[in-house]
Order: sequence, then structure tokens, then C-alpha cells
Amino acid sequence: MEVAVIGGDGRIEALARLLDRDGHDVRCYGLERGDLALPRAGSLGEALEGARAVILPLPMGGGEELNAPLAASPIPARALAEAISPDALVLAGKPEGVFAKAAEARGLRVADYFAREELTVKNAAVTAEGALEILMRELPVTLLGAKVLVVGFGRIGKFLALRLHLLGARVTVSARKPEDWAWIQSLGLEPADTGCLAGAVRGFDAVVNTVPAPVLDREILRELDKSCFVLDLASRPGGVDLAAAEELGLRAQWALGLPGKAAPETAGAAIRDTIYHMWKELECSQWKG
Amino acid sequence: MEVAVIGGDGRIEALARLLDRDGHDVRCYGLERGDLALPRAGSLGEALEGARAVILPLPMGGGEELNAPLAASPIPARALAEAISPDALVLAGKPEGVFAKAAEARGLRVADYFAREELTVKNAAVTAEGALEILMRELPVTLLGAKVLVVGFGRIGKFLALRLHLLGARVTVSARKPEDWAWIQSLGLEPADTGCLAGAVRGFDAVVNTVPAPVLDREILRELDKSCFVLDLASRPGGVDLAAAEELGLRAQWALGLPGKAAPETAGAAIRDTIYHMWKELECSQWKG
Amino acid sequence: MEVAVIGGDGRIEALARLLDRDGHDVRCYGLERGDLALPRAGSLGEALEGARAVILPLPMGGGEELNAPLAASPIPARALAEAISPDALVLAGKPEGVFAKAAEARGLRVADYFAREELTVKNAAVTAEGALEILMRELPVTLLGAKVLVVGFGRIGKFLALRLHLLGARVTVSARKPEDWAWIQSLGLEPADTGCLAGAVRGFDAVVNTVPAPVLDREILRELDKSCFVLDLASRPGGVDLAAAEELGLRAQWALGLPGKAAPETAGAAIRDTIYHMWKELECSQWKG
Amino acid sequence: MEVAVIGGDGRIEALARLLDRDGHDVRCYGLERGDLALPRAGSLGEALEGARAVILPLPMGGGEELNAPLAASPIPARALAEAISPDALVLAGKPEGVFAKAAEARGLRVADYFAREELTVKNAAVTAEGALEILMRELPVTLLGAKVLVVGFGRIGKFLALRLHLLGARVTVSARKPEDWAWIQSLGLEPADTGCLAGAVRGFDAVVNTVPAPVLDREILRELDKSCFVLDLASRPGGVDLAAAEELGLRAQWALGLPGKAAPETAGAAIRDTIYHMWKELECSQWKG
Repeated sequence: MEVAVIGGDGRIEALARLLDRDGHDVRCYGLERGDLALPRAGSLGEALEGARAVILPLPMGGGEELNAPLAASPIPARALAEAISPDALVLAGKPEGVFAKAAEARGLRVADYFAREELTVKNAAVTAEGALEILMRELPVTLLGAKVLVVGFGRIGKFLALRLHLLGARVTVSARKPEDWAWIQSLGLEPADTGCLAGAVRGFDAVVNTVPAPVLDREILRELDKSCFVLDLASRPGGVDLAAAEELGLRAQWALGLPGKAAPETAGAAIRDTIYHMWKELECSQWKG
Repeated sequence: MEVAVIGGDGRIEALARLLDRDGHDVRCYGLERGDLALPRAGSLGEALEGARAVILPLPMGGGEELNAPLAASPIPARALAEAISPDALVLAGKPEGVFAKAAEARGLRVADYFAREELTVKNAAVTAEGALEILMRELPVTLLGAKVLVVGFGRIGKFLALRLHLLGARVTVSARKPEDWAWIQSLGLEPADTGCLAGAVRGFDAVVNTVPAPVLDREILRELDKSCFVLDLASRPGGVDLAAAEELGLRAQWALGLPGKAAPETAGAAIRDTIYHMWKELECSQWKG
Repeated sequence: MEVAVIGGDGRIEALARLLDRDGHDVRCYGLERGDLALPRAGSLGEALEGARAVILPLPMGGGEELNAPLAASPIPARALAEAISPDALVLAGKPEGVFAKAAEARGLRVADYFAREELTVKNAAVTAEGALEILMRELPVTLLGAKVLVVGFGRIGKFLALRLHLLGARVTVSARKPEDWAWIQSLGLEPADTGCLAGAVRGFDAVVNTVPAPVLDREILRELDKSCFVLDLASRPGGVDLAAAEELGLRAQWALGLPGKAAPETAGAAIRDTIYHMWKELECSQWKG
Repeated sequence: MEVAVIGGDGRIEALARLLDRDGHDVRCYGLERGDLALPRAGSLGEALEGARAVILPLPMGGGEELNAPLAASPIPARALAEAISPDALVLAGKPEGVFAKAAEARGLRVADYFAREELTVKNAAVTAEGALEILMRELPVTLLGAKVLVVGFGRIGKFLALRLHLLGARVTVSARKPEDWAWIQSLGLEPADTGCLAGAVRGFDAVVNTVPAPVLDREILRELDKSCFVLDLASRPGGVDLAAAEELGLRAQWALGLPGKAAPETAGAAIRDTIYHMWKELECSQWKG
């Protein structure tokens, strides 16, 4: 299939390479400063010419210009929307703002691959491994034998807690629902109540938050051992009071956007798989391509 | 707390023992033929006298008599409902039928512990381990190195697939949703599409179904290797065409009620934990005990 | 290659099938009561005729008759030794006694596949899984969450402890050497000193011995919880005082020969792999076949 | 016990802290630039005064000066040997050279804790986790799903291969002995023959060498995928031809001394445990302290 890939970071670059490897006719634009070996389109128009699918960055960016850190020159969002053929399917990560409005005005079909649960799951797995890397780098002890508290038992919490456990850490996972406690225990982990962390956070070598709400506030942070490392993996607004952590002399770090940083190729492959699912489903329904 | 425990199997027996160990004042009736070392009530009335909570079997049974395989004599459901004080909280596993009607007529407060998600989760973990035992017993090969297909990625499918993987089996898990495939892959397992099993079931040493719908029909069974062992863990109506399996000369088994059989003490402890959660929540709301 | 397979149990039967599948010209004798689908030799002579390798049972048995539980009629050890061509390579499991003497007198080349370390290792892995099956069957609790003591950190101890740990058991492993304690800790397990078990064996749901020396004597057994299950996996003379266990009312079991019972096909495949290694090494050295 | 701790890096610093925490009377010298909160001796003499045990660095260094990167000023090896009381037990990591000679001349009792197998094992576990960190940092893919070849099945190879496997990598381990292949297979990993790597190294995302011999020579390196990352964990002389790797455009890294870098506290705790074992054994034998 003819696919235009426009802008984006290392994940989109990896995605372009994988689509090419799978036999698609890939035209790239806005990845000039990466090390992609694919033939590149000389202009936006050339890239879009005849493309049945147009893949935009993650996040695509809601402003005047596309999120395109590897592009030789800025890519105007409005002009892009106006250059895409109404026959093409646009696949964007979190489409919004300038592009989204312009695309809607023109009646373009825009699908959000970032909204797909399977991509969220795979990104959570990459994030969990990225978190392991940070913990290994920051802790003066091995994860083997370390006492680690994971706050939250969503996707990232699940993957991270399991991996920590398999590496030999003594893992406590806090959650709010009895059914989550049942899962935690049934995976061989120690459960705790996120609502009752006060008085229960001593002795940990590391605390990892995954909940995007103010869970690790000053009061809880004050109870941590001074040598405890605090890692926040929650998306904005995060869940750790970083200012309080600094005042208390705790080492703390907020890691955002780990999939793109820790493993861009795996993150790109996850986008590829997601896009394939979307194509397959669209074929069966409204999209006659 | 004063607790009456009436009827039930080895799980309820274990539950009574655990409640006693936790310091409750436990009165048992209908467990005479078990090997419970607790003081037993001489009559139903004695057991219920002053009890603030009454625990009934799992399943309690909807007929004229309570499900009480360890009882010295039958326990009539209606008489039981009439003997319970309206002040007591009744905790029953799947309350229904004769008892449920009589209890409702009397305005008894009846709560169903089997409907609690945390118990379902814990039972799934016990079921998964029970399935491992059956597979080890039935297969002429070790799970280490065996090729196993798990059909369905619900609670039991998740626990079983993970354990098989950790024991060294080469595990494929089939599901229907892309997000489940993402989970399966992110746990290091091989995904398959439950909707497309035809043509994809050769070479397995064992196939374990967890889906209570006709998934492993004659057509699929026909494709299995003759030496493949088929295990159905799905609740009624099951998911394997056992008649077809027999005709095809396949070894197949439908394992129902594994928690109570494989690990009654763990299953009883799971009921205990669930009941404690229920008590705690009720304390905070309508139940003033 | 022309291979005669004489006597033995389900493992040897599986071995014969695998050799046939690998393209060898297999002639079986003494497996008549098994369900082997291979063409069988009508007589010992027919089986041995032209065979370049002769595979004998594990253990082959040191008495007048070969260990051949699946044979239609007894196979005399001496007559067998006299019927084998001096050009053939004899591969036997623990050759000894009548056959060994007769073979030596005739100058037969006899190699002991059971003495090969790789077979011992693979058998240990099968034994460990067989032990899991027994524990699952015998314990009223799941291995998930169970407290298990593994005595000894040899091959079986290593495999068993790791698998128990991965299934969620809380595993203590006892050994005598500091380096073993280091291994045990580095695998995420709890170490103990086999020399100091007295006073340290309370609270276990199961104790599994792997040391063929009197480790679990009356004194230690007396300290176990009454509900503790004792499993002895050690080869003769075993390591558990079974008489004392019975007197003390403990459930105890001595499991010998697990590989052949728990997973004959895997055990047969392990013998096959071992024999291939032996053939390959012999080719490179004295055996010119 | 009165213990003098002289020189060394972060591991020795952690060791001093742990000894203090365990109640010993610890006197430090040569750790001035670290962040140790213990009271420090003002001079070498003060530190050694009355010390029944003297702990020296790992490695202690064979030259004129002790290995003491955290010392405010150099510590002369000869003067140190002359200042230690003959009643004290000297515990050094790889004692050699100037100090060793001077100590021998004075009849000091010097024991080498680095020669203890349990420390080697624990260091291997720390090294394996350090290697995971490097792989996570260097690879553009997650270890989940990555194809990794581990060359060598010694201590580090065992720990690393197991951890990679548990994190979801597809792990091949090469060794030379059939018994090691049996272990590798029985742990659920793919075996390979270290002697036959030529022709078998395509498709790997990473290759990790643990063998201190020229295994990954130019010929083998040439066969690797261009994107493959090569990590050498072998002690000197290493096992990867790094010059050839660079010429071939491969990313390669030789990681030496990982325990001290990746997890100094865990490495220090391992030395502490080892020293305790040595003390205990010496008590039972010649050392009457």
C-alpha cells in the first residue's frame, strides 16, 4: 500500500522502516535528520501523492506546526491538512488543534491510533522496562533483594510489578480495590491499600508511582527512608510532590514519554501493529480504500 | 465476633478453622463428618443463637436442602431461613431458590460472597494451579518444553498462561480483542485469534479451554494431533465438544469446581478474606452490627 | 543407522519411537506389551541382526533377566550378551551384574548412558516437575503462597526450588556450603543451613528432601507442623525417616524413579539426546562404526 | 569487634557502614572523600590501634600505594603492612605485590576474601543485573521480545540468561559441554555450541560474551547483524575483538568491574557476608582472636 509518513520522532522513523520491510510503498517527509535509509520525498506534496494512508506523529502536536523533531524544516499543520487527499486515511497520534480543525473542515477521515487500547498496553510494557532501567541506574543496590513499592495497579503497575518480582525484588503493590488486591496476591506480590499508605512506606529502597493524582504528597514523602529513590511514571499531572521531595532531600525523578526514549524501535513496532489492526477493521467496515 | 458456619464442603470447613484462628467465636453445624477440631453446635438453633453473622455454603444450593456434604443429617433450607435472626447478616455463596425466597419473605439481609470479584479472581488462581496438576498428570511429557494452547484470556487464562510460561512451556494464548493480544505479547506469550483457530491448532501437546462457549467444536478438534490432551476449565456449558473428542479418540477432560477439589484450604482462605472485605465495607455503610 | 532396542519401560518405548522418527532403522524386542506402533522383531536374534547399536534398559538390571516390564516373555541377560555382535556398540543404563560380566568376557563395547551428566541433569528437571505434581496433589493449599523447604541444592534442588518460586511459593533452600547459599540468595530464594535445621523447620506447608543421607531424622520431623507434608526425592537410601514420620502422624512419601513415571516421553527424549552425544563423541574418537 | 577499614571504593564504604550497623567498632581510614557518616580515624595508626581485623580494598592493588580512590592522601602499602599488629587478621581483596611481600615478611595473617566462591557468585549476580542495565540503555528495542545470545554458561552466564528470559527476551546460550546444554534446555533456554558459533549468529539484537578467551573474533563478528550490540563481560583478556568490532561498524562495549559500579551497596554487603563466613570458619579452626 502507498503510505506517506510525515514528521515524528525515532518511533515514527522505526515505523517507516518496518512498513517498508513489510512491503509497503513508503514515502517519508520530515524525517530528514534521522538516519533512515529509505528514499525520502523531496516535498510534502511528493510524499502525499497517491498515498492511501497518511501517518502523522505521536503526539502530532496541536499547534501551527507538526511535531517533527527530525525534520529539516518546519511542517505547517494547516498546509498539511490542505494537501492531503480526501480519499486518504489519516492516522494520527492524538489529533487535535490546528490540524484537527482544518482536517475536519475538509472532511478528511482522521483516526487516532494513540486512542487504541492495544497501543496503550504495549506502551505500558515499554514504560515498565524503561522504569527498570532507571531504577537500576539510580539505586546503589541491585533490584535483586531490593524492597520496592509500586503505587497503582493499572497497566504500567502490572507490568512493572511482575518484572521487578521476576528480577528478585521484594515487591509491594498498592491499589484501592479488593479485586486488585486479589490479583496482586495471586501473582505472588504483597498488596497494600493506596488509601492507607501513611504509616506503611518505611524501609523501601524505591517507590514507583503510576497514578496520575496526588498520591505521594509531602506527608507520605516525609515518612520515606532518606535513601529511598522516588520514581514517578504517571502522566500529567503526575502523582509525586516533587518540590516537597527536593525539600526533604529525597532523590526523585519524573519520567515522561519513556516509550519513545527507552525503546523507539519497539514503540514504533507497536504503532505499526496498531495501524494494521485499524486497517483490518476499517476494511471490514466503512473504509473501502 | 459470633459467627455461625452452617453446612458446606472442605472449603467452608477451612474457613471455620481460619475464623476461629483469627479470634472469632465460631459455631459450626453441618460439618460433622469433616475433621474439624472446633467445638460443634449440637443443633441448628444452638449454632445460630446470638450469631451476628451466618455463613452458608458455596454454592449454598437452591433446593429444599442446603448443600452440606459433610453434615450428619440434611439441613432444610426453609427451616434454616426461619431460624436465623433478622439482626444477623447472612453471607451465602450464590443464594437462590428455596432459602433465598424464605429469607426475602422474612426480610433477612443476605449477601452473596461468590458475586465478589476478588473471590472470583482468587478462585481463578486456584483453578489455574489445579489445571497445572491435571496437565502434569495427564501429559507423558513435562510442561517444560511442551506446546500448550490456552483458549481465552480471562482471569483463568491469564493465571494459567503465565504459570505455564514460567514452567518452561511454549504457550500460545488465543483471544478475540487486539488489546488482549497486546497483553499476551507483552507477557512474552504467543498470541492467536480465538476466531481463527481452524488451521492453527496442530502440534500442540495440550489445549486448555477457558471460554464457556462452543469454541473447540468437532471441526477444530479434528485438527488436533491425536496425542493432544484437551482440558476444559470453562464453567457450564463448557467449551469443548466432549462427545466429538471421544469419537475422534482424543483424551479430553472437563474439570469443574477445581478450587474446592485442588486446594480447599486456599479456597476457604479466599472466602474468609472476601467476607472480611464485606464486613469492613458494611461497617462503613448500612450495617451497624 | 540400524539400532536394536531391547526391553525397558515407557521411556525406552518413547526412545524407540523418537529414533524411528529421526530416520533410524529401529528393531524392537521386549516391548510387546507397550503400545508402540513400530514393527517388532519376532525374536531377539532378529532384532540384533545387523544392529550397529544395541540399546538396553534404564536400569538394565543386574540379575539373570533384563529389566523388561513390557516384554511378552523374560529376556535372559546372559543369552543376550552372547547374541550381540562384537561389532555393535551396546548402550545400557547402569550396566552391571550378569550381563556386564558376560559382555566383558566376550569383549563387547558397553557404554553407560546413565552415567552421562547431561542425562542426570535432564532427569533432575523431570523429577522436579514430577515433585510439583505430587505437592499439588497432596497439599490442601496452593503452591502459590505455600511455605516450602527444599533440603539440598544439587540438581533436583535447584530445579525444584526455582519452579516453586516461580509458582509463587515462599521457598527456603537448605545447603551446607556458603557458595550454595550465595546461589540461593542470588536466585531470590531464602537460604538455610542443612547442618542447622533443628529449630528452623516450623511453619512449613511442605518439606522436600533431595539429599540421600539421613537428614530428616526423628528429631527434625518432630518439629514439623502436623499438617506439613514430607516428600523425599532422594535416591536410595533416601533422607527421611519414614517410620518416624508415620509414628508422628506426618504425611510422608518417598518418590523414586519419577522421570519414568511422570513424563516417560520426555525422559525417553533425554536418553535419545544423550545417546546422540555419545555417538558423536565416539565417532570422533575410537568408534569407527 | 574492633575492625579497621582502610582504603577502597564505594563498596568498601558500604561495607564499613554495614559493619557499623551490625554493631562492630569500625575505624575508617582512606575513605575521606566518600560520604560515609562514620567517625573517621585521624591517622592510619589510630585506625589500626587495637583492631582485631583489618579490611583492605578490592582489589587492594599490588603497587607501592593501596587502591584508595576515596582517600585524602595516598596510603603507602609497605608502611601499612608494617603498622598492622601481628595479632590482627588481615582481610584483603586479591592481596599481592608490595603489601603481600611486606606482610609475609612480618608474618601477618592475610586472608583473601575475593578468592571465596560465595563472593564470586554474588558478584556474578550483580554483574548480570548491571549487564541488563547496559542492554536496556543501549538497545533501541525492549529486552521483551529481543533476541539475545549469551556466550558462556558460567556464573554470570547463568544469572544473565535466566534474568533475560524472565524479562521476555528470546535467549540462546552457548556452551561447550553437553551437560551445560542440558541445564540450558532444562531452564527453558535455547542451547548452542560455543565451538560452532560461526554460521549461527545472525538475527540477534545483542550478543553478550562472558568467556575470557577470544571467542567473538573478527570472523564471528562479521556475521552479526549491523544493528547488533556486543557486550563483553569477561574479565581480562576479554573475549571480543573490539578493534575488529569497530572496523566492522558494530556497537561494542567491554564492561569491567560492574559490581562496584552498578550496585556498590549490594557489592559491599556481599563482601560483608563473605567476611562473616570467614570469621566464623576461622573461629572454628585456627583463629582464636
